[in-house]
Amino acid sequence: MTTARTDGITGEADTRRRLLDVAVVLFIRHSFAGTSLQMIADELGFTKAAIYYHFRTREQLLIAVVEPMLRELRAIVDTAGRQRGPRARAEAMLAGYAALVAANRSIASVLTTDPSVIRVLRHQPEWRDVLERPRTLLAELDPGPSGVVRATAVLTGLAGAASAAPDDIDQDALNRHLLEVGRRILGLRTPRR
Amino acid sequence: MTTARTDGITGEADTRRRLLDVAVVLFIRHSFAGTSLQMIADELGFTKAAIYYHFRTREQLLIAVVEPMLRELRAIVDTAGRQRGPRARAEAMLAGYAALVAANRSIASVLTTDPSVIRVLRHQPEWRDVLERPRTLLAELDPGPSGVVRATAVLTGLAGAASAAPDDIDQDALNRHLLEVGRRILGLRTPRR
Repeated sequence: MTTARTDGITGEADTRRRLLDVAVVLFIRHSFAGTSLQMIADELGFTKAAIYYHFRTREQLLIAVVEPMLRELRAIVDTAGRQRGPRARAEAMLAGYAALVAANRSIASVLTTDPSVIRVLRHQPEWRDVLERPRTLLAELDPGPSGVVRATAVLTGLAGAASAAPDDIDQDALNRHLLEVGRRILGLRTPRR
Repeated sequence: MTTARTDGITGEADTRRRLLDVAVVLFIRHSFAGTSLQMIADELGFTKAAIYYHFRTREQLLIAVVEPMLRELRAIVDTAGRQRGPRARAEAMLAGYAALVAANRSIASVLTTDPSVIRVLRHQPEWRDVLERPRTLLAELDPGPSGVVRATAVLTGLAGAASAAPDDIDQDALNRHLLEVGRRILGLRTPRR
């Protein structure tokens, strides 16, 4: 249906991968709500039936796109939550988040800024908590309204900066710049080596 | 069609206002791409014809929603661009932007983070430049990749923080917190009074 290979399993996995990659590009261009399965099929030259073979609904496709990043975010949140004291928790949360968005520039923006994506994920009990805890961990450092404003600025600012970063900034440099921005917002010192 | 008032002009202006207000709420909930004119009509209990009387296309409605904020942004960019030296230009751009997003919490997030909105506005020659110059003015302070990352973090971070700010933070307090976040990112000192 989708490939002339004799190795059917690899062919299917490849097709699924291409499907997810094209979905991210279209989600960024049109937002999740503005992207139909038909548009994804057209972009790949597939039939809609070929898409349905892998994903029954647009929501399933979205979850498949963002799930790897959400799993990593959960691990970061768990590690950060185990640190002693608000400063160590915020530092661990920030360092993990900066590395995560630097490594996932395109998905980071889909995940943190697209209102239609956030709406779908808030209805997934499995992920709701993972989406809310980063802000709590970062805001703890500075109780009160300014702490919430700072924490939200870190999460949206780093995702926005990562997704719009010039292509000539490599992942390591981007990670460093993002970490520095986050430390400045939160008033965290750069740790000595 | 839309009101029982005898004062037809006020009635029409009211209807237009209600239409724009509901549109913002739905754009935030579903993204612009995910909001149809039919959904707006349903939310207001109007017919689709009543909506068409005011706006022929979804794009016209979007422009009407964001135009007042874009006009203010253009004035801020023009004022900032006339300042002497990169530091004064960045400070003026930041102060204007923080005040603007603090005063327009809901529209700020539609305007700066919804990919389907940005896509429409980039095709409007009138507004493309207004959307690009803020980053240039903020990035000038620190030539090179880290300046671009910082400038983007300011623009997306302040908009994100404003749109997610708790309701109990009033506009003045929010403005102060946002300005402080921006100054921290850019390494600008708080001016003495």
